[in-house]
Amino acid sequence: MTSPTENSASSKAPSSPAPRVGVIMGSRSDWETMQAATEILQELGIPFESRVVSAHRTPQWMMDYAVSAEGRGLRVLIAGAGGAAHLPGMVAACTILPVLGVPVQSKSLNGLDSLLSIVQMPGGIPVATLAIGAAGAKNAGLLAARILAGEDAELRERLRAWMESQTDQVMADNVLGT
Amino acid sequence: MTSPTENSASSKAPSSPAPRVGVIMGSRSDWETMQAATEILQELGIPFESRVVSAHRTPQWMMDYAVSAEGRGLRVLIAGAGGAAHLPGMVAACTILPVLGVPVQSKSLNGLDSLLSIVQMPGGIPVATLAIGAAGAKNAGLLAARILAGEDAELRERLRAWMESQTDQVMADNVLGT
Amino acid sequence: MTSPTENSASSKAPSSPAPRVGVIMGSRSDWETMQAATEILQELGIPFESRVVSAHRTPQWMMDYAVSAEGRGLRVLIAGAGGAAHLPGMVAACTILPVLGVPVQSKSLNGLDSLLSIVQMPGGIPVATLAIGAAGAKNAGLLAARILAGEDAELRERLRAWMESQTDQVMADNVLGT
Amino acid sequence: MTSPTENSASSKAPSSPAPRVGVIMGSRSDWETMQAATEILQELGIPFESRVVSAHRTPQWMMDYAVSAEGRGLRVLIAGAGGAAHLPGMVAACTILPVLGVPVQSKSLNGLDSLLSIVQMPGGIPVATLAIGAAGAKNAGLLAARILAGEDAELRERLRAWMESQTDQVMADNVLGT
Amino acid sequence: MTSPTENSASSKAPSSPAPRVGVIMGSRSDWETMQAATEILQELGIPFESRVVSAHRTPQWMMDYAVSAEGRGLRVLIAGAGGAAHLPGMVAACTILPVLGVPVQSKSLNGLDSLLSIVQMPGGIPVATLAIGAAGAKNAGLLAARILAGEDAELRERLRAWMESQTDQVMADNVLGT
Amino acid sequence: MTSPTENSASSKAPSSPAPRVGVIMGSRSDWETMQAATEILQELGIPFESRVVSAHRTPQWMMDYAVSAEGRGLRVLIAGAGGAAHLPGMVAACTILPVLGVPVQSKSLNGLDSLLSIVQMPGGIPVATLAIGAAGAKNAGLLAARILAGEDAELRERLRAWMESQTDQVMADNVLGT
Amino acid sequence: MTSPTENSASSKAPSSPAPRVGVIMGSRSDWETMQAATEILQELGIPFESRVVSAHRTPQWMMDYAVSAEGRGLRVLIAGAGGAAHLPGMVAACTILPVLGVPVQSKSLNGLDSLLSIVQMPGGIPVATLAIGAAGAKNAGLLAARILAGEDAELRERLRAWMESQTDQVMADNVLGT
Amino acid sequence: MTSPTENSASSKAPSSPAPRVGVIMGSRSDWETMQAATEILQELGIPFESRVVSAHRTPQWMMDYAVSAEGRGLRVLIAGAGGAAHLPGMVAACTILPVLGVPVQSKSLNGLDSLLSIVQMPGGIPVATLAIGAAGAKNAGLLAARILAGEDAELRERLRAWMESQTDQVMADNVLGT
Repeated sequence: MTSPTENSASSKAPSSPAPRVGVIMGSRSDWETMQAATEILQELGIPFESRVVSAHRTPQWMMDYAVSAEGRGLRVLIAGAGGAAHLPGMVAACTILPVLGVPVQSKSLNGLDSLLSIVQMPGGIPVATLAIGAAGAKNAGLLAARILAGEDAELRERLRAWMESQTDQVMADNVLGT
Repeated sequence: MTSPTENSASSKAPSSPAPRVGVIMGSRSDWETMQAATEILQELGIPFESRVVSAHRTPQWMMDYAVSAEGRGLRVLIAGAGGAAHLPGMVAACTILPVLGVPVQSKSLNGLDSLLSIVQMPGGIPVATLAIGAAGAKNAGLLAARILAGEDAELRERLRAWMESQTDQVMADNVLGT
Repeated sequence: MTSPTENSASSKAPSSPAPRVGVIMGSRSDWETMQAATEILQELGIPFESRVVSAHRTPQWMMDYAVSAEGRGLRVLIAGAGGAAHLPGMVAACTILPVLGVPVQSKSLNGLDSLLSIVQMPGGIPVATLAIGAAGAKNAGLLAARILAGEDAELRERLRAWMESQTDQVMADNVLGT
Repeated sequence: MTSPTENSASSKAPSSPAPRVGVIMGSRSDWETMQAATEILQELGIPFESRVVSAHRTPQWMMDYAVSAEGRGLRVLIAGAGGAAHLPGMVAACTILPVLGVPVQSKSLNGLDSLLSIVQMPGGIPVATLAIGAAGAKNAGLLAARILAGEDAELRERLRAWMESQTDQVMADNVLGT
Repeated sequence: MTSPTENSASSKAPSSPAPRVGVIMGSRSDWETMQAATEILQELGIPFESRVVSAHRTPQWMMDYAVSAEGRGLRVLIAGAGGAAHLPGMVAACTILPVLGVPVQSKSLNGLDSLLSIVQMPGGIPVATLAIGAAGAKNAGLLAARILAGEDAELRERLRAWMESQTDQVMADNVLGT
Repeated sequence: MTSPTENSASSKAPSSPAPRVGVIMGSRSDWETMQAATEILQELGIPFESRVVSAHRTPQWMMDYAVSAEGRGLRVLIAGAGGAAHLPGMVAACTILPVLGVPVQSKSLNGLDSLLSIVQMPGGIPVATLAIGAAGAKNAGLLAARILAGEDAELRERLRAWMESQTDQVMADNVLGT
Repeated sequence: MTSPTENSASSKAPSSPAPRVGVIMGSRSDWETMQAATEILQELGIPFESRVVSAHRTPQWMMDYAVSAEGRGLRVLIAGAGGAAHLPGMVAACTILPVLGVPVQSKSLNGLDSLLSIVQMPGGIPVATLAIGAAGAKNAGLLAARILAGEDAELRERLRAWMESQTDQVMADNVLGT
Repeated sequence: MTSPTENSASSKAPSSPAPRVGVIMGSRSDWETMQAATEILQELGIPFESRVVSAHRTPQWMMDYAVSAEGRGLRVLIAGAGGAAHLPGMVAACTILPVLGVPVQSKSLNGLDSLLSIVQMPGGIPVATLAIGAAGAKNAGLLAARILAGEDAELRERLRAWMESQTDQVMADNVLGT
């Protein structure tokens, strides 16, 4: 099995800064949801990498990825999965980095299964769970930014500006049905 | 971390036969539920071992336990867990033995979270899920017996007798409220 | 009523080996879901038969099928049904073979009714329940393979290879969004 | 297996009229719920019998009971069960008598599983489902009375009087908190 | 407000027999679901009438309809409604005829609201609840037939034949995927 | 059947002002929940009456009560009920007064059935639904006060003072665990 | 941040009467649902304004809007929101006007999340909750009308006529399937 | 209204370091749940303050608290609430600090309402949601530690030791039922 380090060519160009956030997901089909996380990271100028890491189909690589993440300079992990979604909790069990879990909307139960199997972690291993689907993925990106902003004054200002612009958009155009 | 092999003194006396079934659970508090599985195994004369193996608190040992189970002669694994219950699915990802999952009744959501996070596995990694709570644990023991009975004619007869006796108990005493 | 034995022309050609797995379902409309089970059995070289057997519309044949299954050489039964899904539990009540239940996604409640009426069996009669829909059907096929592999070293190797190939597919192509 | 006819000593004294309603339940523990049905039948003077008949533990007797019910003079069947509650639906599959299903409150899911596995029958086999628990059992007795009253003018009057007395009780004492 | 008697031109031609079953529903949009009930009544030769009777929009007519139903010769009422579905329960409160309730699938909650507001009646007023949607409507028709068959030997035979033909259809064509 | 007018001795002493709010509930057992509504009305000096009015057991009186409420000077109706809770919706169908519905916590489904059968009203007949249980009953009283305050400046000030005092209680004592 | 007063050009022409009802919603995408409220207000001749006011994206403006609403002559607030829907409850916390909450149907959980986060308010702050989606929005408009009609005899007559016409539509055309 | 700054005497003695984490909750009754968060913060040596801050009963103070938190040196906010739980989301709307939400188990719906109204935030405002009840509160404390550890090597080591000790406890005593 390839070690994650060999495998981890950043999703950014060679000269780009080392990734601070690892965005992982249980299968390729989760990418449609999870790119909402990477888009916001890009918008806020936070370097990241994104990988398919399956708790069930690549358990050993999942553990290697989680165990080595801190050493490779990652500061936050975002993990998306659907159905019996074990990826966020298992990754959180193998690292001390903050792990943010995104429940991907499932086919039959609409993501209620994904949500409960991510959020209902036993005391001892925290997973920061966001909303089901793309809104949750976007918010995972924003939460990563809030976490990293604690030690990065510039990011703090970019984040503040992002929020103000979000407020301004509502204020500029709030009269309906005239 | 101790390897599971060093750690696996059978729960039976030294002269007892090697365990065929491994009964594991995410925490000591699950034992109240899971002993319904071991009772039926005992009643049907199937050697087993029982351990606390936590997907979240002992992830490495969990993987070692699962990976080494087949080589140690185990033929069926029974895994009980509650809440965001990842143990059965993660064990199933690390072995080709049949894994039977028992959703332990949780405090706030009554085991619906346990059930969904065990049963809703993605295609590729099967977990044979039983009912929530002690009824499910008892049935996990019976299902292990049905599986092992495929190659064990004596067990097949003990199992058949057990079912007939269950039927007889209902038939013997079915008139109510007289 | 025709006995199942007369009726059971195998779904394989005359010279093919006797079926080891019986795949049954409550109605023709379940076939779209359940063929995910037969595909995996075919892929792993496990002979099977597939039938519509309705607990509600053909209760006597259902019982005959279940009672005679062991004698006809079947080793595992896979039963799919939707809504108030009684087929897996009733079949399990009439045989000592392992019965694997697949909840078919229902129209109004998305398979939550199918799931609960299959998985919540009382202590005494086990049904190994899989996920709702095609993922569950595929996993039922894989679980049957894990069960049969206990006494079949060649199948064990085919199964191991299947899992490794599944892992390799994820590893080979896990970088996203570059 | 004893045939239900040999086994069916009425729950009334020898000289009492032949039972018109069969009240059956999946296990002795359901009796606490189901006696609300027999109490109302007694109150309205409708002869009945009550039995433990388990779809899962006594499948053959269940079928015999259902198939022979019409011939033995029963006109309505009331069946209570909990969890994966298959008794009402299976009995309905084996008779043309009206079958009334009572979902018994289950331990972990509070009877939601019982309700869905009784009410969500596929088109073709009807089960008249009542509320979860004792209220449902009482109403099953009343529904049986409404059904039998179609051809029994005296019962019709007793039923009408029962409803009027129920109304009067509310009217007589409806001022609160004075 | 027109009285139901004036309004009740049967849905059959003038010379057709008086309706035995009243099929009512809360709104025109429920007709798509509820005609599955009238089709089976037609198939079994049971005269019926069908009306829109809204508990919420025509409460007085609903009460008049329910109160006068017995006197007009109706023997069974079938009531379909969706969402906060009060029609079946309110009709049952105003008659001693058996009332069969059909939960119509609702837009946001898929009929779970319809089901719970029909089935969870308090002790004292029974509603015989069927499955959500068209399967439930069809079964309401069949349940009405089972009820009426108690005093109608010819209907009993037509019903028995209908069930046998249903069985035969499954038996004739149960081999899949050959 | 007694008309509600004869029956409506106010729950206040003879010289007290005519009730502005009618607090009704489906059964005596709902009183434990519903008195939270009357307590807040009393605290805010709003005259009220409280009655058991059952949609299912006293349907005619329920209609009479609803139809006559406006003429008797009531301005708001508060209706509490549990399970298949039809009282609020049926009352709303028979008056143009604002009707506030309180879902009483039910035994098996914890009030989810009560909530859905009150809140999911079809377009055309509004019921202002509050939370399940005593919190909802208290809020029904407060909502009645907010409605009546629109035309009553003194009540408006009492209500404002009540809210400020509620805020002050939190502010006065908000440091924990010191 | 613009104050709501500067921002509140009525959605009606300058000469139109001052709005009595404020219809607000968490995002532009809620307008498709919420216009069912404004349509009924228009039909009943009740002046209103409609705005996007987001609890999460414009928290300060939301508070300003709520705090100033009473002083600006508004008498009822209607607030629609989806998912973790905080708008109705937060507005109710900042005013003594009656606040009517409309749960907008959400993508993954179909509005069950919207419903629970609006209706389950703690004792002390009431929100009058309506059904999920457009039916709830329409009923919010009707409930506002019922509230305002308490002090407006003409509106009372328009409302009564509206309800009678609704009844007449059902009565005029209630025979089905002829 | 007192400003939070005047009101914020730390829950630690005067000489203790300034709090890095603010633990707030909607009512005093949530303290039983939320102290699991403060215990773990204490154990890991992270200074904190704990307050009752109600979104509904003290909306202005809630906003003041959230807006001033960053300036007062807080780095992470933990907010617990039950039912229609708006506190975490509203606080997150008024700060750029990471906000961790703990759903407190509610009386009727067991915390499902709390969970959905905290986790289902719209894209734009993230809340890091933990499990329902005390396990979630404990994990909120641990997640705060993981976040703060990013810039605090000593805390990182204390956290690592804490996790290892948790693993050791399971490993030391994992044999059951001997």
